[in-house]
Amino acid sequence: MPQLILDKQKCIGNIEKMVKKAHENQLSFRPHCKTHQSAEVSNWYRDFGVSKITVSTFPMATYFAQTGWNDILVAFTFDPGQVRTLNALPERVRISILIDNPDILPHLRKIERQVSFYIDIDTGYGRTGVKSDATQTVDSLIKQSQRIKNLSFAGFYCHAGHSYKTADPVKRKELHLKALSDLKKLKEQFITYAPKALYGDTPNCSIQNDFTGIDEITPGNFVFYDLMQLTLGACQMEEIAVAMACPVVGKYPEVRRLVIHGGAVHLSKEIIHMEGKPVFGLMVNGIPKGWEPSDRLQYISGMSQEHGILEECGDWMKDVNIGDILHFLPVHSCLTANLMRNYITTEGQHIATLNS
Amino acid sequence: MPQLILDKQKCIGNIEKMVKKAHENQLSFRPHCKTHQSAEVSNWYRDFGVSKITVSTFPMATYFAQTGWNDILVAFTFDPGQVRTLNALPERVRISILIDNPDILPHLRKIERQVSFYIDIDTGYGRTGVKSDATQTVDSLIKQSQRIKNLSFAGFYCHAGHSYKTADPVKRKELHLKALSDLKKLKEQFITYAPKALYGDTPNCSIQNDFTGIDEITPGNFVFYDLMQLTLGACQMEEIAVAMACPVVGKYPEVRRLVIHGGAVHLSKEIIHMEGKPVFGLMVNGIPKGWEPSDRLQYISGMSQEHGILEECGDWMKDVNIGDILHFLPVHSCLTANLMRNYITTEGQHIATLNS
Repeated sequence: MPQLILDKQKCIGNIEKMVKKAHENQLSFRPHCKTHQSAEVSNWYRDFGVSKITVSTFPMATYFAQTGWNDILVAFTFDPGQVRTLNALPERVRISILIDNPDILPHLRKIERQVSFYIDIDTGYGRTGVKSDATQTVDSLIKQSQRIKNLSFAGFYCHAGHSYKTADPVKRKELHLKALSDLKKLKEQFITYAPKALYGDTPNCSIQNDFTGIDEITPGNFVFYDLMQLTLGACQMEEIAVAMACPVVGKYPEVRRLVIHGGAVHLSKEIIHMEGKPVFGLMVNGIPKGWEPSDRLQYISGMSQEHGILEECGDWMKDVNIGDILHFLPVHSCLTANLMRNYITTEGQHIATLNS
Repeated sequence: MPQLILDKQKCIGNIEKMVKKAHENQLSFRPHCKTHQSAEVSNWYRDFGVSKITVSTFPMATYFAQTGWNDILVAFTFDPGQVRTLNALPERVRISILIDNPDILPHLRKIERQVSFYIDIDTGYGRTGVKSDATQTVDSLIKQSQRIKNLSFAGFYCHAGHSYKTADPVKRKELHLKALSDLKKLKEQFITYAPKALYGDTPNCSIQNDFTGIDEITPGNFVFYDLMQLTLGACQMEEIAVAMACPVVGKYPEVRRLVIHGGAVHLSKEIIHMEGKPVFGLMVNGIPKGWEPSDRLQYISGMSQEHGILEECGDWMKDVNIGDILHFLPVHSCLTANLMRNYITTEGQHIATLNS
């Protein structure tokens, strides 16, 4: 069966680097835990003095609250169906939520605890959020929220996810600087509330060096990185901290094809294109402890529920036998980790997640 | 949170129809359980007299053996790493495996129980299997297997998965008839072993009516169907037996966009194209018990880890509020069910799976 291998040293290296970057830029650091979804991995943040986290759902908030986290932002526009789960969280936990629409406010009258909220700001991504120039909506949201006893306005949150849509450094810097500028303006306009600005997707937090006006960063994927981040220039191949170990189950030298056990239920169907070809994973060299980059640009080029297909294999495939284990970097480590639900470190330690 | 709703009546209707088709064509029926992965759903097959199943992994075989199934085919080219799990299956269970390479045989000397094997035959799909004209390989495989005490040759297995690659009825019939003809030739050539021919992907088993030479069919997806099967003409929309109930978490009337909680970790990143546009799910009308097709061709057109994006929404979106539940048919129900790990029926019954 496929296994998701985690290189703890690489992972801690990624954490250390981001902690350092936050420190150098005088940013508070609230890493997103949706990528690893693991109490154990979250403890590695604690070792660097991190005391607050970001999650994407209330079940995830509940899990991390149970493992001792006391300051949790649920960075997903609030769903009224989650009021009960919110109220049931341990009292000691400071909870923040995300809002982008005044229509949610009547539902929040049912909140039985103090909750901070951030206004989700859209600086150009076009997914969720109040458009950054819609200051009347922002004003109205803040004022209406003041009539709700347990709710207090904490600031602005921006996930500039359009950073994933371009690998062009100039365009990416532009969208980053626009986000900074938009958030700065909002902070100035609503300065009487002393709002904070929270920011952070992995590409921007990894690549950019100017965070003027930002108070806190919330990247998540950087803890593992993946092929998508590699193609965006957000990481080096050596920094990718998870790899899938897959048994070879088919060998067809006459058509230069290998088939592995490692499919859509393991790696996910997330796809990128490299050299114009569809890629579901990139082969790396297995070494006694973990993996290392390979000279062979061998991709997983096809995928069904359980199977991964390697086409146009080189002569090296002669030495591969049925049952051998090959290693692959995932395209999108968040989805892969969510599917696999467990890690085994290169030292052999089993690591559980919320979904184990 | 998103919930996967299962319409038990539609599901049983799909089972009944396939049972009838098998009966009318004098075919034995060994449904694939990788789609639903649920003991409860597998019991609905038992009510129609089904006594054997297909699975894709040994953990899945173990789960269904524990729930009382006694005849299980693991329809995935055998991985030597699974010998121990195979040996640990309850003695009463008759296990069949899939082989396409003589290199696997030495590993099978470690089998401590009687195991039947089918030779995986490639009639044109190009994933796994011995090419259907490679009769020398087939002959060699059978002869070599006879030297292994616990192994007995049972016949040929063909998953004609290239049926998923064309919606053209003429081309699809051609590839189906080629598969039948190839299997028939193999059966005749190796008649001294009285081999059986196992066949069956959902599109072919749903659409085709000629199964000459086939002994047993093994489709799986038909139990739920999905948008992919719909676009292939393998089912009617009314037959799709699962839908995702997703809360609305974002409403942006100025750009005609809605955002739902329902993303890649719920529906999967499986994509099809309808009217030239990327589709991750199709909206249907929620009704008091379940759902029904809608006149609105509203797709999930974008997706991230937790979010689904509905673009170009019609005037109907005015009546939608944050927190409302919208219903969506999945593109690939196997992957969606694997991610969700639980169902709730339209009658409110909770149904667990292997992964619950």
